Amino acid sequence: MNRSRLAELLEAVRHGGLPVEEAVDRLRDLPYGELGEAKIDNHRELRQGYPEVLLCQGKTKGQVREILGYMIRERNHNVLATRADGDIFAAVSDLHPDLRYNTIGRTLALRREPVEAPRGSLAIVTAGTADLPVAEEAFETACLFGARVERINDVGVAGVHRLVPHLPVLRQARVLIVVAGMEGALASVVAGLVDSPVVAVPTSVGYGASFGGLAALLGMLNSCAGGVGVVNIDNGYGAACLAGLILRS
Amino acid sequence: MNRSRLAELLEAVRHGGLPVEEAVDRLRDLPYGELGEAKIDNHRELRQGYPEVLLCQGKTKGQVREILGYMIRERNHNVLATRADGDIFAAVSDLHPDLRYNTIGRTLALRREPVEAPRGSLAIVTAGTADLPVAEEAFETACLFGARVERINDVGVAGVHRLVPHLPVLRQARVLIVVAGMEGALASVVAGLVDSPVVAVPTSVGYGASFGGLAALLGMLNSCAGGVGVVNIDNGYGAACLAGLILRS
Amino acid sequence: MNRSRLAELLEAVRHGGLPVEEAVDRLRDLPYGELGEAKIDNHRELRQGYPEVLLCQGKTKGQVREILGYMIRERNHNVLATRADGDIFAAVSDLHPDLRYNTIGRTLALRREPVEAPRGSLAIVTAGTADLPVAEEAFETACLFGARVERINDVGVAGVHRLVPHLPVLRQARVLIVVAGMEGALASVVAGLVDSPVVAVPTSVGYGASFGGLAALLGMLNSCAGGVGVVNIDNGYGAACLAGLILRS
Amino acid sequence: MNRSRLAELLEAVRHGGLPVEEAVDRLRDLPYGELGEAKIDNHRELRQGYPEVLLCQGKTKGQVREILGYMIRERNHNVLATRADGDIFAAVSDLHPDLRYNTIGRTLALRREPVEAPRGSLAIVTAGTADLPVAEEAFETACLFGARVERINDVGVAGVHRLVPHLPVLRQARVLIVVAGMEGALASVVAGLVDSPVVAVPTSVGYGASFGGLAALLGMLNSCAGGVGVVNIDNGYGAACLAGLILRS
Amino acid sequence: MNRSRLAELLEAVRHGGLPVEEAVDRLRDLPYGELGEAKIDNHRELRQGYPEVLLCQGKTKGQVREILGYMIRERNHNVLATRADGDIFAAVSDLHPDLRYNTIGRTLALRREPVEAPRGSLAIVTAGTADLPVAEEAFETACLFGARVERINDVGVAGVHRLVPHLPVLRQARVLIVVAGMEGALASVVAGLVDSPVVAVPTSVGYGASFGGLAALLGMLNSCAGGVGVVNIDNGYGAACLAGLILRS
Amino acid sequence: MNRSRLAELLEAVRHGGLPVEEAVDRLRDLPYGELGEAKIDNHRELRQGYPEVLLCQGKTKGQVREILGYMIRERNHNVLATRADGDIFAAVSDLHPDLRYNTIGRTLALRREPVEAPRGSLAIVTAGTADLPVAEEAFETACLFGARVERINDVGVAGVHRLVPHLPVLRQARVLIVVAGMEGALASVVAGLVDSPVVAVPTSVGYGASFGGLAALLGMLNSCAGGVGVVNIDNGYGAACLAGLILRS
Amino acid sequence: MNRSRLAELLEAVRHGGLPVEEAVDRLRDLPYGELGEAKIDNHRELRQGYPEVLLCQGKTKGQVREILGYMIRERNHNVLATRADGDIFAAVSDLHPDLRYNTIGRTLALRREPVEAPRGSLAIVTAGTADLPVAEEAFETACLFGARVERINDVGVAGVHRLVPHLPVLRQARVLIVVAGMEGALASVVAGLVDSPVVAVPTSVGYGASFGGLAALLGMLNSCAGGVGVVNIDNGYGAACLAGLILRS
Amino acid sequence: MNRSRLAELLEAVRHGGLPVEEAVDRLRDLPYGELGEAKIDNHRELRQGYPEVLLCQGKTKGQVREILGYMIRERNHNVLATRADGDIFAAVSDLHPDLRYNTIGRTLALRREPVEAPRGSLAIVTAGTADLPVAEEAFETACLFGARVERINDVGVAGVHRLVPHLPVLRQARVLIVVAGMEGALASVVAGLVDSPVVAVPTSVGYGASFGGLAALLGMLNSCAGGVGVVNIDNGYGAACLAGLILRS
Repeated sequence: MNRSRLAELLEAVRHGGLPVEEAVDRLRDLPYGELGEAKIDNHRELRQGYPEVLLCQGKTKGQVREILGYMIRERNHNVLATRADGDIFAAVSDLHPDLRYNTIGRTLALRREPVEAPRGSLAIVTAGTADLPVAEEAFETACLFGARVERINDVGVAGVHRLVPHLPVLRQARVLIVVAGMEGALASVVAGLVDSPVVAVPTSVGYGASFGGLAALLGMLNSCAGGVGVVNIDNGYGAACLAGLILRS
Repeated sequence: MNRSRLAELLEAVRHGGLPVEEAVDRLRDLPYGELGEAKIDNHRELRQGYPEVLLCQGKTKGQVREILGYMIRERNHNVLATRADGDIFAAVSDLHPDLRYNTIGRTLALRREPVEAPRGSLAIVTAGTADLPVAEEAFETACLFGARVERINDVGVAGVHRLVPHLPVLRQARVLIVVAGMEGALASVVAGLVDSPVVAVPTSVGYGASFGGLAALLGMLNSCAGGVGVVNIDNGYGAACLAGLILRS
Repeated sequence: MNRSRLAELLEAVRHGGLPVEEAVDRLRDLPYGELGEAKIDNHRELRQGYPEVLLCQGKTKGQVREILGYMIRERNHNVLATRADGDIFAAVSDLHPDLRYNTIGRTLALRREPVEAPRGSLAIVTAGTADLPVAEEAFETACLFGARVERINDVGVAGVHRLVPHLPVLRQARVLIVVAGMEGALASVVAGLVDSPVVAVPTSVGYGASFGGLAALLGMLNSCAGGVGVVNIDNGYGAACLAGLILRS
Repeated sequence: MNRSRLAELLEAVRHGGLPVEEAVDRLRDLPYGELGEAKIDNHRELRQGYPEVLLCQGKTKGQVREILGYMIRERNHNVLATRADGDIFAAVSDLHPDLRYNTIGRTLALRREPVEAPRGSLAIVTAGTADLPVAEEAFETACLFGARVERINDVGVAGVHRLVPHLPVLRQARVLIVVAGMEGALASVVAGLVDSPVVAVPTSVGYGASFGGLAALLGMLNSCAGGVGVVNIDNGYGAACLAGLILRS
Repeated sequence: MNRSRLAELLEAVRHGGLPVEEAVDRLRDLPYGELGEAKIDNHRELRQGYPEVLLCQGKTKGQVREILGYMIRERNHNVLATRADGDIFAAVSDLHPDLRYNTIGRTLALRREPVEAPRGSLAIVTAGTADLPVAEEAFETACLFGARVERINDVGVAGVHRLVPHLPVLRQARVLIVVAGMEGALASVVAGLVDSPVVAVPTSVGYGASFGGLAALLGMLNSCAGGVGVVNIDNGYGAACLAGLILRS
Repeated sequence: MNRSRLAELLEAVRHGGLPVEEAVDRLRDLPYGELGEAKIDNHRELRQGYPEVLLCQGKTKGQVREILGYMIRERNHNVLATRADGDIFAAVSDLHPDLRYNTIGRTLALRREPVEAPRGSLAIVTAGTADLPVAEEAFETACLFGARVERINDVGVAGVHRLVPHLPVLRQARVLIVVAGMEGALASVVAGLVDSPVVAVPTSVGYGASFGGLAALLGMLNSCAGGVGVVNIDNGYGAACLAGLILRS
Repeated sequence: MNRSRLAELLEAVRHGGLPVEEAVDRLRDLPYGELGEAKIDNHRELRQGYPEVLLCQGKTKGQVREILGYMIRERNHNVLATRADGDIFAAVSDLHPDLRYNTIGRTLALRREPVEAPRGSLAIVTAGTADLPVAEEAFETACLFGARVERINDVGVAGVHRLVPHLPVLRQARVLIVVAGMEGALASVVAGLVDSPVVAVPTSVGYGASFGGLAALLGMLNSCAGGVGVVNIDNGYGAACLAGLILRS
Repeated sequence: MNRSRLAELLEAVRHGGLPVEEAVDRLRDLPYGELGEAKIDNHRELRQGYPEVLLCQGKTKGQVREILGYMIRERNHNVLATRADGDIFAAVSDLHPDLRYNTIGRTLALRREPVEAPRGSLAIVTAGTADLPVAEEAFETACLFGARVERINDVGVAGVHRLVPHLPVLRQARVLIVVAGMEGALASVVAGLVDSPVVAVPTSVGYGASFGGLAALLGMLNSCAGGVGVVNIDNGYGAACLAGLILRS
């Protein structure tokens, strides 16, 4: 349901062509698909500009299969599911021949319609190799927005000189995602070098006093550089949503 | 120092017109002003698109007066200082006749040059009246970027109907700042209703298990709505930097 | 032992028909069943209006089997055990042919006597599909109280419009249980829309800075809406006890 | 604005008697009073059954005076403000001759209309003398609901025998509020002795490892007794809202 | 090495019968057994009145076997090892025919010499069946001290009446160990009823906001009853050491 | 009320000489003094062997004066009040000419009856001078038990040699209280050197990552030495209660 | 690339022998090896005096094999990988015949070139046997620096006399690493006895309120002895890097 | 008392010239000065190479005056007191005419004897102006060791270019102290650029989620650069002790 169809319906109420009760029923039913244990937010794309994404974590294989099947069958959108381990993929791989599994990023994607590329590019930067799963999740999500993505890996601040050759790419990006665990200092350093917004993703990479990513999270929140927005630990999906909305703005 | 002058200098080195030692000296001195106990980042505007802002908290009145005096005298930029309590203002009010003090936002501002307004507008939304100081700090900072700002106050989720009349304003903003303490749920609710990026600022408003803003911070980081970037507790300045960079992107 | 039998016994002491020592012995033995490693609180129903429920977590299969067997054999009440994984069920499934296992809610229930339905209904609302195990535990517990239950699933605040069609059901419930993980904002939003008490159950659904449900817990405790009582993370059982006592009040 | 007037207005739209634009304007303006920096939720009483209460903490004296003045002038309801220290009271005491200040509970109350007493009574129980400020806040709030209140003070578990003489009062209450700091064990003990819902309020009374009420909060959340709903630390107001809604249910 | 032999050695130095160097060597070697990766504190019994106990957790099976073998072979004391899972027992069960494994308490014990019973008795009280492993560890350790032990299980405060019949036993104990998880309130309640010292052991029994025993730990530390000493979460061994020293004092 | 008088009363009920109702009334009234906002636990000395102690913190000057006045007037016991700042003392100093104020320990004491000294002595050991206020509170409390006290100050582990000359005193004490802030390591070191029970009191002495005494608290709870019981941060009173009960056992 | 080659290159630029563009390319490529998902910091040895060490944790077996293979093939340095479990070793053991696996320390080492021993020795001290894995990781790392290492195991403060015979070794070391879990007090005690710098490594050895090493970490940070530098929990590698740099200084 | 005098005394015992009892008395009295409430560690300089430093925080003015007076009168060493606020200085300023007060660093120093400068220099680097108090405390302490100190202020990572001109100074220092609040990233960046040991001092500079320096502390502990030793938050004194011992090693 798009905006113009919504306007028609409301006009019909005003002219008496549509009884109030019936209009309420239509509007009540439209915005999501009722699956018993889940409600698919069909309205999301209209409201927020990108389709609902399925978070597999915490759901049973049966629930994932039912919801993903609905999303593939009933709608013509591109489809993305995150936090899908190998068992999940095995349980749903027959749902569509073009369903693609990213083993590092643990995502399931089905691309069916082209997405118009927004102005500018997105740079995804990681501090270390162990941050790649989160960066991959961000990459797959960014594709939903049609974003052009540049990727720079393993440039953590212990060897800050590794960052220098990539400064031109960093500086021409319209928005950047910085993915870092441990002390998470890369976000501050990058934000101090560019004049674009930086989305910082702390990761749970590390041990001991990293406390599952808390150290990186606090570091990024306390960044002495302005222009840094932080998302949840390991939340590559959320980082790319924010970056995608910025690119589209 | 702008980009073209930097290029000239480097060319002069290449052609031998400028000895290496001397070039190093010039570059060493240029990017910041040395004040003994502080280094003013004159290079910031070139590098990041907005001037360095003075955080007064943790500095003595003497230090603030010295740094602010330098910023007012030596440069022609607009000037902003944050977290300035009444004592600070009393200690510096004579530095310039146009220095303006925002008692709620605790900011000192001197506007001397017009700033070109970026495309689109910024909406600053607060959950409650007690969140105003943070929203004011964000507002004053947003002015550095020339942002056009819409403000909507006291629309916390306990009476979510208060939000409804403002949906048109929220939806036409190119970026939104949501300022909320206590459980911080307003960020999720707003982000679920718009298709623009949302910068969430948790505040220390609340008591008991709000733990100085921790509850709101965690709530915002765990937002089930995509497109939310979080900054530090009470960090209105940082939120506006991020929003300003998004508007300029 | 009910109230009238207690009164008789005490009168017998007063009239000398029952020696003090013997009365003490009877009273000492009555209120619980002694099983060596456990004491079954037979007195609970008299004192609190609902039978003791067996928490399986932390007990060995042998201990669960012994206690559950006692509860089934020696008393004629309805029986409920919570946090029973598949291994536990396998170890006790032969104790009674009518013992029913709820695989999602991980509960074991035996219904033998009808329970009088209290006035009004209970609504159990979940933010997402992954919150269902907790909601199921609440549902099974609510049945001990004879509660009439309405269930509304997957209406988290990222798509708050999904909540709207259910407002009539929410508003006619005499008490509501809201089950939500991540930022837990649904409790505040629902409590702001109804005039009945809300029991909020934070869940451990989420990752990273949800810290095992801490984010949702703090969010619910800091709810800016009045009328919200919070129980432990994932404690569907406790939520339903509270709701059941409210319905019976 | 009550329900029947709302229905009239919507019928007027359907019959064309009221243009859509104008109806939107009326509805937009009705449910709250716009005070610039605050929005008074006039709709609260219609929606939730009790008037909006003003939390003074975090607001300036000027803001409190403006909002309280509006609530006294524009509406005929009973008025309550919480967390009002002596300075606040001095700043608003001239607003109405009947405004009453509770020095222990730090509340400001104006009672203008009788409230119908709901069925049953509320017992407010404290563990120690230092918990009285929270209990007083709860008491003043309970009066908004017309509740009949029984109060039992200083019966903490270190001398659990002090609780025994009060068992009849505890057991006949329809709902109980237990206010306790330190280890907060009183909530569990009371809940194990009654068959009514218990609202537990942890307080910041204590020192060291009480961590500002965290110990009591965690103790109450982990209560091994069913039927306990917890509110924020020191939140006497919230406890009474929940208890009031239970009494009215 | 006992006190009189130590005195002899020192006298020998004073009279010149023993060169300083040699005396140092003897003293250096005596107090512990050197096993390469471990040093067995043979001096412990002389210094503290009970033999060193082997904590298996964190050690490999090979290390446990080597140390336990040394303790069994080289010394004639009673031997105790704690936190020994089934694999550990399998790896060492052949070391001595009288080595006894407590499957619930996860302890290995070898009793070879009688221990004189100290004056008075020790009561070990648990709140629930799931606290038994910790209570068993305490029981096995108390046997090292020759303590006479009374055990009372499953008397948590949700049904505080279950505690009443055991009051005489509780009150005649010279010291009590209270083992409780969840909110840990049993320690306060018991300490308020007796005039003997109480050793409180918080356990990790519980879930959610018990945070691995933190809730019980904080509750016990904040006990409003005097006379409570707290040990680490799940530390049945430490509780019994403290109780044993009290009995011997 | 002592034990024999209690027995008489119960016999009177059995023989009919005392109606049940009247007996209940007497027992209800006896065990505590009702002061409106407080209940004085007169029964404490009978039940626990030492009189109730007044914690001033969190109470108003008026409340302290009322309760202390009652304790002084109505009973002939020794009286102790803790956490009494100078304002409190000024407000109550006229209540009795022999009331003594300990400025370092912030206690108020009135000694009227001799207390029989228990067997053995108590050693109170501090790590540093800043720990003295807590040690003084412990000392004053120990006097309630008639304890003979040895005091050893400023022997923290940074100069562990300072401890050596005091070993004889430490080793002959029947129980020890170790008061230490910062890392709190003194408790472990002392407990490893003696064969008596050690009561460890973490203090809030320190800064930064001492987190108000948390570091010392955790250190003491994790002591690798057996025989250590921990009380709340800064809780000199509780430490002395525990030590006093041990001495009396 | 060493310092003299760098100087040559820069001179070539100054004399025009090397175009700026080409110099930039060379410098850009030199300092690290680009492996796609990782960048090997070849420049580390030049910059910091010891080669980059591979942290295996968080990397897949394929990634470890690729990076380790590069380090073995392309460079002639000594090689070290840490946090390598048995599976990792199985996956890479064929890369070089001299690759050595330390099963306790979980390190992979290849020694190919002799390292000049720095002045003085390093002492590695552990509190208990369970701390050995961290001590072994430190030992293997110290070998990269050519350090002469003395090792003293199992001298925790519960039996502080075990430390005495080792004082001469401790006092002659130029730097010490103290490895301790639980309360971590050994670091303070050792630092109080020597006049050399102490590197303290908290370990996750312990349970309950050790909170994964947090207790030891806080204890060490709050050490009342000066001269203690703390590294992350279980970070034997980092401790040895610091100690190695001190030895080389 | 120096090492040779200690050896003489022990020889005297061996030859019978000094009775054991008397020797014990002398040794007992020598190593510290007994002041009643404090013990001055005169032995510290012998044992650790620098005199005991007085931490004023937590001590009363009277206690500081007594201890400082003793240190000035009885010994001829240099004297340092830290955390001395203005009131403390006023209370002791008459103790010696050369006592010098550092208002920013809050230290009191008396330099009476020259200290031999150790090999190499120390660089103290701060991230911001607000970190100066901690850096000053470190500077004053470093003077006790005779260290040559280079100071570089206000080079936080938000403008990492400000660090570049100081690289030569950083790289030639034999040890560095990095003082930083907020995210504390400067320690990692500096450690990645030098080959000397880095002592990292987190400061409490910041607000909100800096949680009093916790963010910087965790960041520094998780530094991805090797060679970083961390001290307590705001502990400039401890950092300089560690750096001083390294310089002397």
